[in-house]
Amino acid sequence: MKEVTMDKLVVLCKNRGIIFQGSEIYGGMGNTWDYGPIGVEIKNNLKRAWWKRFVQQSDNSFGVDAAILMNAKVWEASGHTSSFSDPKMDCKECKTRERADNLIENYAEKHHLDIVVDKMSNEEMEQFIAEHKINCPKCGKHNWTPIRNFNLMFETSRGVTDENQNKIYLRPETAQGEFVNFLNVQRTMRAKVPFGIAQIGKAFRNEVTPGNFIFRTIEFEQMEHQLFCKEGTDESFYQDYKKKAWQFLIDLGFQPNHLRYHDHDKLAHYAKEACDIQYLFPIGWSELNGIHNRTNFDLSRHQEYSGKNMLYMDPVTNEKYIPYVIEYSIGADRLMLAVLSEAYEEQPLENEIRVVMHFHPAIAAYKVAVLPLQKNLSEKAKEMYQTLKQHFMCTYDEAGSIGKRYRRQDEIGTPYCITIDFDTLENGTVTVRDRDTMEQVRMTLDQVIAFVQEKITF
Amino acid sequence: MKEVTMDKLVVLCKNRGIIFQGSEIYGGMGNTWDYGPIGVEIKNNLKRAWWKRFVQQSDNSFGVDAAILMNAKVWEASGHTSSFSDPKMDCKECKTRERADNLIENYAEKHHLDIVVDKMSNEEMEQFIAEHKINCPKCGKHNWTPIRNFNLMFETSRGVTDENQNKIYLRPETAQGEFVNFLNVQRTMRAKVPFGIAQIGKAFRNEVTPGNFIFRTIEFEQMEHQLFCKEGTDESFYQDYKKKAWQFLIDLGFQPNHLRYHDHDKLAHYAKEACDIQYLFPIGWSELNGIHNRTNFDLSRHQEYSGKNMLYMDPVTNEKYIPYVIEYSIGADRLMLAVLSEAYEEQPLENEIRVVMHFHPAIAAYKVAVLPLQKNLSEKAKEMYQTLKQHFMCTYDEAGSIGKRYRRQDEIGTPYCITIDFDTLENGTVTVRDRDTMEQVRMTLDQVIAFVQEKITF
Repeated sequence: MKEVTMDKLVVLCKNRGIIFQGSEIYGGMGNTWDYGPIGVEIKNNLKRAWWKRFVQQSDNSFGVDAAILMNAKVWEASGHTSSFSDPKMDCKECKTRERADNLIENYAEKHHLDIVVDKMSNEEMEQFIAEHKINCPKCGKHNWTPIRNFNLMFETSRGVTDENQNKIYLRPETAQGEFVNFLNVQRTMRAKVPFGIAQIGKAFRNEVTPGNFIFRTIEFEQMEHQLFCKEGTDESFYQDYKKKAWQFLIDLGFQPNHLRYHDHDKLAHYAKEACDIQYLFPIGWSELNGIHNRTNFDLSRHQEYSGKNMLYMDPVTNEKYIPYVIEYSIGADRLMLAVLSEAYEEQPLENEIRVVMHFHPAIAAYKVAVLPLQKNLSEKAKEMYQTLKQHFMCTYDEAGSIGKRYRRQDEIGTPYCITIDFDTLENGTVTVRDRDTMEQVRMTLDQVIAFVQEKITF
Repeated sequence: MKEVTMDKLVVLCKNRGIIFQGSEIYGGMGNTWDYGPIGVEIKNNLKRAWWKRFVQQSDNSFGVDAAILMNAKVWEASGHTSSFSDPKMDCKECKTRERADNLIENYAEKHHLDIVVDKMSNEEMEQFIAEHKINCPKCGKHNWTPIRNFNLMFETSRGVTDENQNKIYLRPETAQGEFVNFLNVQRTMRAKVPFGIAQIGKAFRNEVTPGNFIFRTIEFEQMEHQLFCKEGTDESFYQDYKKKAWQFLIDLGFQPNHLRYHDHDKLAHYAKEACDIQYLFPIGWSELNGIHNRTNFDLSRHQEYSGKNMLYMDPVTNEKYIPYVIEYSIGADRLMLAVLSEAYEEQPLENEIRVVMHFHPAIAAYKVAVLPLQKNLSEKAKEMYQTLKQHFMCTYDEAGSIGKRYRRQDEIGTPYCITIDFDTLENGTVTVRDRDTMEQVRMTLDQVIAFVQEKITF
């Protein structure tokens, strides 16, 4: 039985220390979220699994961790300063603010018109809205202001004296951190094309209508891998990364029928090909990650704007070229939401329904919960808990019936519960209960350590 | 021989992929730094070691990961909005801007006056400067503007419509993320005082004169642990954390004679006791981490400003109280600089000086470098490299003489180099060279995996 909804996830996350509303005691801070003790472990485990796969185990792959605050010229080169914005119009009657492109898209859909809004200039959009007398969706009147563009980057200022206040931005994407370090990484790692640069880090977007829990937030963490390759080999690497991105999700435990490829018809100006992997979220099929063939657009732009030579010289053929980039990008928070959705189950038992989170053991927050069967076994249980937590994240619980304690661990997805009983005192063995099958086996503590260590390897 | 200077570290970091200047191709972005492929691994390893020690292995310790963007009321409660600022005066003659408190401190030191500048109001500082005719250190004239306070928080705005632009800040410290989640963590983890909340995350300060490489940057990562305890037990926990913080550094490989405690004479208004652990950086003895007894100031302020009850009820005695906080805080970037400084050695060998970084194997970026002795052994070497990197971060190098390759690994602190020779083809054994002793032992690949696995456990 699969009964996951966004509301159920939000409530579970709040009550089980997975995710809280940001600044909650002050009434929140719109569309920010704080990871609690269970959530931060899960998210860190996801980041570690991704890094292990796409940096440690990959050939010719190198990590970076670039600053969030970058020189403002980076965003001129990337095009964000001029065009990372929404075109907005106000209704003069009821003061509603709308995105002009959304107004046109909705109108076109309703009247079955074949229009590519992305290619229209502001003037063309204004003209279209006037000609077709598109009305305000709120008050129904037609009295719009001209279009104004609102940039989605958070702006701040560096420096504290009035004369040298410099406008800078919170990065709206991590990718530029890899691009501006292309030469540094290539030189210091003596890297030969094809090679990859990976980064995990925060990005920020001052969006108007984000929402849906952690699906879209103003502050989010991206995991990105940019493969630098030679033109001509790009198509084959693009196909490679489509497969690798899919396989990573399968290995995390996603059902293949909850995933699908979605090729883009409309491409960004820099892209040759682009596709998403979509996941069947509680809100429906939506983008989980993206794979883009960005051509040599990014490095060419940085060459143009920085004046630095971005040519790579092939050490064998002496050929010089600006590499193409295959970008694979996945949001850590969005992956977290997908993993939560995928893991959730309400399972009917004899007399109750248990909520159980079927996380991959590598991803679960606590690997083992130590549960003394009775209070007078707690000394032995605590001793074993102290041993186990030298090896992996563990928790200890002696409050309430053993059944209640199992349910608490099921709800946060702890894969193994060990119970200490009177046999433990005699022969040192404990029972190990499997979260998914609820079956128990007896083993010694050393066996538990080896058993769990193997299960949590991703 | 120990010859570390800041300049040598900066050059090594730049040339060996450890740390690059932020936005370097655009001429940099003042006081931001990007971690390169080697640096990001070392920093992640430091964060992991810290988390393992202070969350996983500690009793009653819980992690959080709070948003960087917080409700602005948080900073009113913490006092940052009103008083996290520098008092500045401009010289009307030469336009130099100076901190008034610095002017007075320098004057007092020169004239052996016993003055506590921190307790002076702006008016008192202005009066002192006028009375003592303190001149501009640049032009020597005495013609100052009145004092103006410049807040050190980076300011930005949330929302894109003019009416609902809300002023918010990049957090200037991570600690408030733990405080505002005190109730959430206590409730969801059923935590009993004393318990701890830990966080690793970025903070930002718009400071005028940061510098000294990554010692002080405008964007930095903090690792913090707040222990919530009952008044009366605070002194003993304060002493505990002084020891735990010290021991963590010793276990990372710091020489005890490069560390010292520094108790604060001047205390912040909220602090009952405070001390630093200082490290002998290349710039001299400076703060590496801090331990503060913050009393119940923080939770009391949040209770006052949020209207939320911050009382903890002891489940045994039913006593209600607002817990005291022992804060242990260490900058990940500053720890990185200390670790780099501590690891650096120029070691005279027979015909050369080798630069070697003596990182703890748990902290080193690559655990193993795989080096075929000759090119025609590269097939076997690559096969072994593929096996090893399933287990830990490895690198492969076949370019240049074996001596040159050893030096490259020494400079980034790779603890073990394995060489593949003709015996490897016959009996499967490789030589394992120890970075510090340069001694070699032969073992099989399985033995290498077990050997390294044990050495890199922190």
